Amino acid sequence: MDMMEARAEMDIDAALRWIKPSVREMGAYTLKPTEPRIKLNQNESPYDLPDVLKARIHAILADRPWNRYPPFVASNFISAVSEATGWPEEGVLVANGSNELIQAVLAVTVGPGVSVVIPEPTFTLYRLMTDVNGGTVVSVALTDDLAFDVDAIIRAARDTDAAVVVLCTPNNPTGGALSENEIRRIHDETDALILLDQAYIEFGGYDGIPMLADRPRLVVLRTFSKAMAMAGLRAGYMLAHPALAAEVHKAKLPYNINFFTEVAAAEVLRSRALLAPMVAEISAERDRIAAELARVPGLRVYPSDANFLVFRVETDAITHTALFDRLLAEYGILVRDVSKYPLLERCLRVNAGTPAENDAFLDAVRTIMTEAGR
Amino acid sequence: MDMMEARAEMDIDAALRWIKPSVREMGAYTLKPTEPRIKLNQNESPYDLPDVLKARIHAILADRPWNRYPPFVASNFISAVSEATGWPEEGVLVANGSNELIQAVLAVTVGPGVSVVIPEPTFTLYRLMTDVNGGTVVSVALTDDLAFDVDAIIRAARDTDAAVVVLCTPNNPTGGALSENEIRRIHDETDALILLDQAYIEFGGYDGIPMLADRPRLVVLRTFSKAMAMAGLRAGYMLAHPALAAEVHKAKLPYNINFFTEVAAAEVLRSRALLAPMVAEISAERDRIAAELARVPGLRVYPSDANFLVFRVETDAITHTALFDRLLAEYGILVRDVSKYPLLERCLRVNAGTPAENDAFLDAVRTIMTEAGR
Repeated sequence: MDMMEARAEMDIDAALRWIKPSVREMGAYTLKPTEPRIKLNQNESPYDLPDVLKARIHAILADRPWNRYPPFVASNFISAVSEATGWPEEGVLVANGSNELIQAVLAVTVGPGVSVVIPEPTFTLYRLMTDVNGGTVVSVALTDDLAFDVDAIIRAARDTDAAVVVLCTPNNPTGGALSENEIRRIHDETDALILLDQAYIEFGGYDGIPMLADRPRLVVLRTFSKAMAMAGLRAGYMLAHPALAAEVHKAKLPYNINFFTEVAAAEVLRSRALLAPMVAEISAERDRIAAELARVPGLRVYPSDANFLVFRVETDAITHTALFDRLLAEYGILVRDVSKYPLLERCLRVNAGTPAENDAFLDAVRTIMTEAGR
Repeated sequence: MDMMEARAEMDIDAALRWIKPSVREMGAYTLKPTEPRIKLNQNESPYDLPDVLKARIHAILADRPWNRYPPFVASNFISAVSEATGWPEEGVLVANGSNELIQAVLAVTVGPGVSVVIPEPTFTLYRLMTDVNGGTVVSVALTDDLAFDVDAIIRAARDTDAAVVVLCTPNNPTGGALSENEIRRIHDETDALILLDQAYIEFGGYDGIPMLADRPRLVVLRTFSKAMAMAGLRAGYMLAHPALAAEVHKAKLPYNINFFTEVAAAEVLRSRALLAPMVAEISAERDRIAAELARVPGLRVYPSDANFLVFRVETDAITHTALFDRLLAEYGILVRDVSKYPLLERCLRVNAGTPAENDAFLDAVRTIMTEAGR
């Protein structure tokens, strides 16, 4: 090692010493980019927005100058959310994707010594943001059937005096949802804030919005990235008691929703009836895929209320890795390998695509599994 | 108070108890929306992007589906930044506005017991994000001439073993910039990370990018909201040693730059030569406004390297509030009242608009000040 290298190494250590230990310990998030023929790995809608809707959004924005900041309050988007949900505007926060709202809720509540109960496996951002803020994740395992263990969640929240219980329902990546009664129990039998992430609620499960009215510890998150077919534009919203929304707002960056997303989200929400047939089809296709996969020897499918399914390779004839690789290499079909999550050994996740895409997926799985079993 | 009200109040307190004290103490950020004839209050570019550039961006995006996530790595935008700056792609982070990068840098470094040195008055987000993360702001006042007090900054960082020194240069809202030698001294005579926010660097001041090569504690932020005329779309980037960038990346949300902003930012950066004449004009106009305001009796103008100026009402003939109100009510000209910032009593801030807008502003100021002095 020459002098230059020695100096550079010393210097970067002098910089990295200021990174919080809780951050240094975190693994870096990486993802290999692939361009498959059929993409069933990110729980996106397989359908783009209708051209008529896109054209209307472009027309509204034709004269919008790019050099001027978005409005300080995204009032057009907020009104549309309030109209759609019946929840007062003062209790609505909108953001550049619901991820930003997860970040903001955890930023205003979590610090060293603060517990956050997270049923796992689930969306990894909750744990990531708890770690960044120096809090303690209290993980509660799903049951062997990948259902929520409601009693264990309540016990964990009470035992650790948890500030927040995060409930992703329907849950990503497993698909199971909590019932109305289960959500009510978790809220009423604990003292925590209940962060209800309902990114997949359009496809099934109990919608927590009516429960907001008399439960001010409840926070509901919704996204435009799934049923609303706007993953490319990033939009989401939060509903909560106005006093709580005002506190979460303090951790949000000003002017963070660009003008394009603000207008698009409001218009798509107002035109959501246009998207309803696609959402119904996607839910029906999920049920069809589940039924078909259940008939394939060597696979176990778990119940799902979302637009995706988890299934496990339960035969020794083929590994989940081989199935994943052959789907991609031979059929150009990309699913998600979720086998690294706790409880999900040998599991893959597939989201419902168009009927033709789902047929291609099912045919490919049947062929690969039959050949492997021969 | 009836039973319902009593219950609702009790309940919201049960929710608010989980908000961190450092957040509860923060004032809510509010801004009154106004639609003035001439808008000189947000340091935006007065010029929209050229139509030819917008058309090219729309053409690139015409077939881009809205239902698919942005790429996990915004490689098109990152390449454009790397080409423009000569800095390796591994050391580039891009974001939905540089605010997100300020948030991420402070999220990975600041927690209870951690000091952040902030010369003030400055952009308020640094203090806000330090507070949200539970850290300690060590404020160092600018001098009476609104210049950086370099010795005091170095002393404060050393005395408090500061993790981060935030240097907004040119500084918002005052306009003063640090010299190359001053930045070098602050870096070399402290152990802290130096967060160099250069949102206004295109208009003047020393550009810290060349200093990155052998100073791994240096972090440079840039925005597209000012000289690049993209405030409405939100884009910014960070340059730092790749190892440091990897740590900051952990606090960034995935998929956070929507496809529209990613493509627009890359194209605008590659076509920045098209914007250079406007940037030169804005800088020249700033100098003209400064010279003209300096000739108005009762006003003191401070030197600025940014696209805006701070001036103080130093006569008893009129208050800064009256000047602000008359500019808006009688002339439709909106400037920024910065009199609540430390050291800026009786000060207003105005950004350079088009020559015609600046003429209107100067004429209005001269008329109001003359009438007041009569």
